[in-house]
Amino acid sequence: MGKITIVGIGPGSLEDMTPRALNAIRQAQVVAGYNTYIALVRELLTDKEVIGTAMMQEIDRCRMAVESAFAGKDTVVISSGDSGVYGMAGLVLELVLQYPKAERPEVSIIAGISAVNAAAAILGAPLMHDFAVISLSDLLTPWELIEKRAEAAAQGDFVIALYNPKSKKRIHHIEKIRDILLKFKSPETPVGIVNNASREKQSAVISTLAAFTTEKIDMFSLVIIGNSKTYVKEGFMITPRGYTV
Amino acid sequence: MGKITIVGIGPGSLEDMTPRALNAIRQAQVVAGYNTYIALVRELLTDKEVIGTAMMQEIDRCRMAVESAFAGKDTVVISSGDSGVYGMAGLVLELVLQYPKAERPEVSIIAGISAVNAAAAILGAPLMHDFAVISLSDLLTPWELIEKRAEAAAQGDFVIALYNPKSKKRIHHIEKIRDILLKFKSPETPVGIVNNASREKQSAVISTLAAFTTEKIDMFSLVIIGNSKTYVKEGFMITPRGYTV
Repeated sequence: MGKITIVGIGPGSLEDMTPRALNAIRQAQVVAGYNTYIALVRELLTDKEVIGTAMMQEIDRCRMAVESAFAGKDTVVISSGDSGVYGMAGLVLELVLQYPKAERPEVSIIAGISAVNAAAAILGAPLMHDFAVISLSDLLTPWELIEKRAEAAAQGDFVIALYNPKSKKRIHHIEKIRDILLKFKSPETPVGIVNNASREKQSAVISTLAAFTTEKIDMFSLVIIGNSKTYVKEGFMITPRGYTV
Repeated sequence: MGKITIVGIGPGSLEDMTPRALNAIRQAQVVAGYNTYIALVRELLTDKEVIGTAMMQEIDRCRMAVESAFAGKDTVVISSGDSGVYGMAGLVLELVLQYPKAERPEVSIIAGISAVNAAAAILGAPLMHDFAVISLSDLLTPWELIEKRAEAAAQGDFVIALYNPKSKKRIHHIEKIRDILLKFKSPETPVGIVNNASREKQSAVISTLAAFTTEKIDMFSLVIIGNSKTYVKEGFMITPRGYTV
């Protein structure tokens, strides 16, 4: 019986992947992941069997990875960012736990730098206070629940980080969320948008809640909306912790 | 003029620190940080000037670090976890931005594995869906705002991660938060508690919302409270993303 390890590779560059994650990949015989993420760690995979599939085939991919561990091969499933945040950790665990305990490969999870943390570091210090993380993808979540969470987070004056803010099929979701947030937050609230954090085409812009939806936003964007204290100074987005300086 | 870099060292072990963070520390002439965190990276500091101070002296420590950069020395300020989440990134930025632009050291921020991500990986996969991060420390935040955020997060059915859940002076805050959450969440909601993630004395326990406050919780604990779908199976805490497996 092989073991199965779910690894967060961080936002993109190997510079942002931990030694624990790197070593897990190096020691694996099989590495499974979405093709885009496989490409990010390509140089580590020269001697590996690779299970790479297109987006939307997560279940098949993870099932193949679990079967590979059953077949005696040490197997790693990679997610970008942190495999524990909208990544593959949950799905792999759910699949493995379908088998009786005695017949099961050992599972472990290795955290990575999550997209929200990578984006925050590029923008300045927007996450210095309480924050909420919401995915706008309604593939697996009812849209009503996403709206409810956005409203609750705004009511609580959380800094709000949006994953999956937009895709080709979901171009108006972000505007609906903006309208909900505008019920509770000032139109001048700073909004940071980071595209391709820690990858070749990295870009970042700081806008406002009233205006940010006109910026370039796609499925590789991470959007951070400030709380009532967040301000912008000379290109840095800062949510004060509350120190008197 | 030196440069100043704010570095998240991750939860504790050097195995969880990124190469980008490691290199920033290696290249620095001066490293500033809370004594406990300085001790975690002691082996990297043999040739460094160290500005280590006890807790609660953050402003002095960061001011000394900024002055060190002004004095021409490349300086790193370390935080445990991610320096961008309740860490030193904001404070250092605020201090540096008090100076006129032309006279200012260059500032950059390097993300680290945040405590919530490290704890989640140890517990299983509790952060697979939308989550809110709240600090229970009321040193810099009015207690009423903390209560309001806990209530908002519970109303939105977020997974809720609590930083600074308890200290010697704040032993009943966690019980007040439990009572607020119980207004919206089932008493059987899984709660994971991780102490000293990725450090020598690491421990983890999974309890319920009704019972978890009797577990060992201190300022080095990270508490993760599930959403309405979170379940525990054979020691793993899992918040399903929504896949049909």
